[in-house]
Amino acid sequence: MDITKFSIPEIIFGRGALKYAGLCAKRLGAEKPMVVSDPGLREAGWVSRLFDVLAGEGMEWCYFEDVVSNPRDFQVAHGALFYAQHQADVIIALGGGSPMDAAKGIAVVVGNGGSIHDYEGANRIHRPLPPMVFLPSTAGSGSDISQFAIITDTRRRLKMTIVSRTLVPNISIIDPNILTTKPRHLVLAAAVDALAHAIESYVSIIASPFTELQSLKAIEMISIYLPLAAREPSLEILEALSIASTAAGMAFSNASLGADHALAHSLGGTFDILHGEVHSVLLPAVMRYNLEAALPKMAQIGRILTGKNIRHERKAAEAGIQSLENLFASLEMKHRLRDVVPDASHLPELCRMAASDACLLTNPRSATWMDLLKICEEVW
Amino acid sequence: MDITKFSIPEIIFGRGALKYAGLCAKRLGAEKPMVVSDPGLREAGWVSRLFDVLAGEGMEWCYFEDVVSNPRDFQVAHGALFYAQHQADVIIALGGGSPMDAAKGIAVVVGNGGSIHDYEGANRIHRPLPPMVFLPSTAGSGSDISQFAIITDTRRRLKMTIVSRTLVPNISIIDPNILTTKPRHLVLAAAVDALAHAIESYVSIIASPFTELQSLKAIEMISIYLPLAAREPSLEILEALSIASTAAGMAFSNASLGADHALAHSLGGTFDILHGEVHSVLLPAVMRYNLEAALPKMAQIGRILTGKNIRHERKAAEAGIQSLENLFASLEMKHRLRDVVPDASHLPELCRMAASDACLLTNPRSATWMDLLKICEEVW
Repeated sequence: MDITKFSIPEIIFGRGALKYAGLCAKRLGAEKPMVVSDPGLREAGWVSRLFDVLAGEGMEWCYFEDVVSNPRDFQVAHGALFYAQHQADVIIALGGGSPMDAAKGIAVVVGNGGSIHDYEGANRIHRPLPPMVFLPSTAGSGSDISQFAIITDTRRRLKMTIVSRTLVPNISIIDPNILTTKPRHLVLAAAVDALAHAIESYVSIIASPFTELQSLKAIEMISIYLPLAAREPSLEILEALSIASTAAGMAFSNASLGADHALAHSLGGTFDILHGEVHSVLLPAVMRYNLEAALPKMAQIGRILTGKNIRHERKAAEAGIQSLENLFASLEMKHRLRDVVPDASHLPELCRMAASDACLLTNPRSATWMDLLKICEEVW
Repeated sequence: MDITKFSIPEIIFGRGALKYAGLCAKRLGAEKPMVVSDPGLREAGWVSRLFDVLAGEGMEWCYFEDVVSNPRDFQVAHGALFYAQHQADVIIALGGGSPMDAAKGIAVVVGNGGSIHDYEGANRIHRPLPPMVFLPSTAGSGSDISQFAIITDTRRRLKMTIVSRTLVPNISIIDPNILTTKPRHLVLAAAVDALAHAIESYVSIIASPFTELQSLKAIEMISIYLPLAAREPSLEILEALSIASTAAGMAFSNASLGADHALAHSLGGTFDILHGEVHSVLLPAVMRYNLEAALPKMAQIGRILTGKNIRHERKAAEAGIQSLENLFASLEMKHRLRDVVPDASHLPELCRMAASDACLLTNPRSATWMDLLKICEEVW
């Protein structure tokens, strides 16, 4: 086995864990943390709940919410300026993937200077970041666990993938209560994103026994709890999806992803698509493309997704993909690319960008931009 | 689900990973690390290999090897003095549980002052420790992963259990090559210790989905690779046992242990027994004691240990214990307490000490010192 690395944050998990946010920030030296969140969470009351916790620890704070879905490079620059102006010391992010990734981008620029574009790709961050405490509000992005940050480059209209061990937050506080105010379609989209993390990390060429264990756990749990969440996202179900998303985060942070995410980043950067909504289109198609290159693992995924102990590897793998397509159809999720992307004429350019995304490096089957285009055309 | 915590070090795993020790220490600010190891590893050549790596990074170091099996309180005090005299900055431990636990004890006293006895129990360390890079030489103790340190109190003749999140090393470098020079009986004893960690953490009353996953993985792998290691501890098998031991370490560090370890600490402190050798006697007896209190989980353990899908819970659980006893017998491990402890007259006192060990708090069935005595008498 090659030398492998496994790095995750300290995790505090459970209903009501939000109350530890102040103590955790303090433990990391906070006197005036910068809170990064978004208007939706403020309106749902979670931002003021967090402020109460910080006040309870006798702390001051500054608050930044100039963040949109698919956070932009200029928002990161604004945030870094804001951090400096307010002489903040620790970054607390409360939100889904967007506020969390924006917070990571801000931390990079605060600690390393320059512009966030300077750090695109793997292992290009060389100086330490301010301490980070993250509170996810969705069970999906895994940004609270991972060494990934995805920031939209507004000039090139693509999502930059930034990967560095220093992007793993110090502490992840996962409180399933925070998920209860999310609309159902966002809960489902996030769970599908987590499922894509689990599947892509499992078949990644740098998967290790440490990540494979987490990937399989996440695939199993999401295949059980995603349909239940579609009916009624109770706190029990949101808790289970949070466990699964955390496991998937541990896996993909350390094993990386594949062609589905490479394409999703390229599509998302150009068309400002909800990230969790493209996987129902792309993931089964990418799994078909990868099938022969990772047959025993694809068969294992198939056995979990179907709940059947199908011996024949190819049959198990194919049944798994079919089962996934049936699941997405039953949830009325998008299943053709034309439902997501307004115009097919951009596809060649999108696939060229996807071909240089860091996630493609670990896909089990190599893919040129033309291979990616063929995948996209098949699901158009 | 109650609020749960999951904290592990950054892990670098694989053959030859030793070469990263210098870089890792440097990343934590080392200019002059203190290396803690033991004469056995020095004689096997691993200490000088480590020095070569540090020299390759242009580092100075100081070296401490006044450590025995079941490390003593006074050795910790000597080590802390040594650290201060040499103005060391980072602690690098290379060894089995004993050098690693001694290194943790030294780090506690260096960072917090006083004597190591002041920190016995859970969460009594309040100031930061010097950074720690650990390189385990056995697949068993899990000290390179865990928030536990076990130090012998020479006056009271018992092992103190010290538990604190700050005892998790910053970086664990797990290089299975280092295990190749260990005698076979130590490899096996360490694997049985890891199996006890996995089983006790799985049935712990504070087990979480994060720890349960790791416990089950470790039980499965050790049940496969322990018998193979007894025949021929090849590098492949040592690597597999290292993965299992790391998984068990992640589990017990966060879910703690039970009555088997409480008794093992008390016995080991009084009679200076090789820690890994008492579990073959105590673990099956403690599992029988716990059977009804954790029946579904004990059944799951039984299914893994027997490799049979036994539906009936009690039968599965009992078959598992029997299978474990058969395994230990086939490996010619100790199976009566009189083979380990020289004199039964000490048992009441030993059990009284075990009853106040921190590990007993998470045993699935509560136990008084008299319950523990009954367990010991059954296996005398």
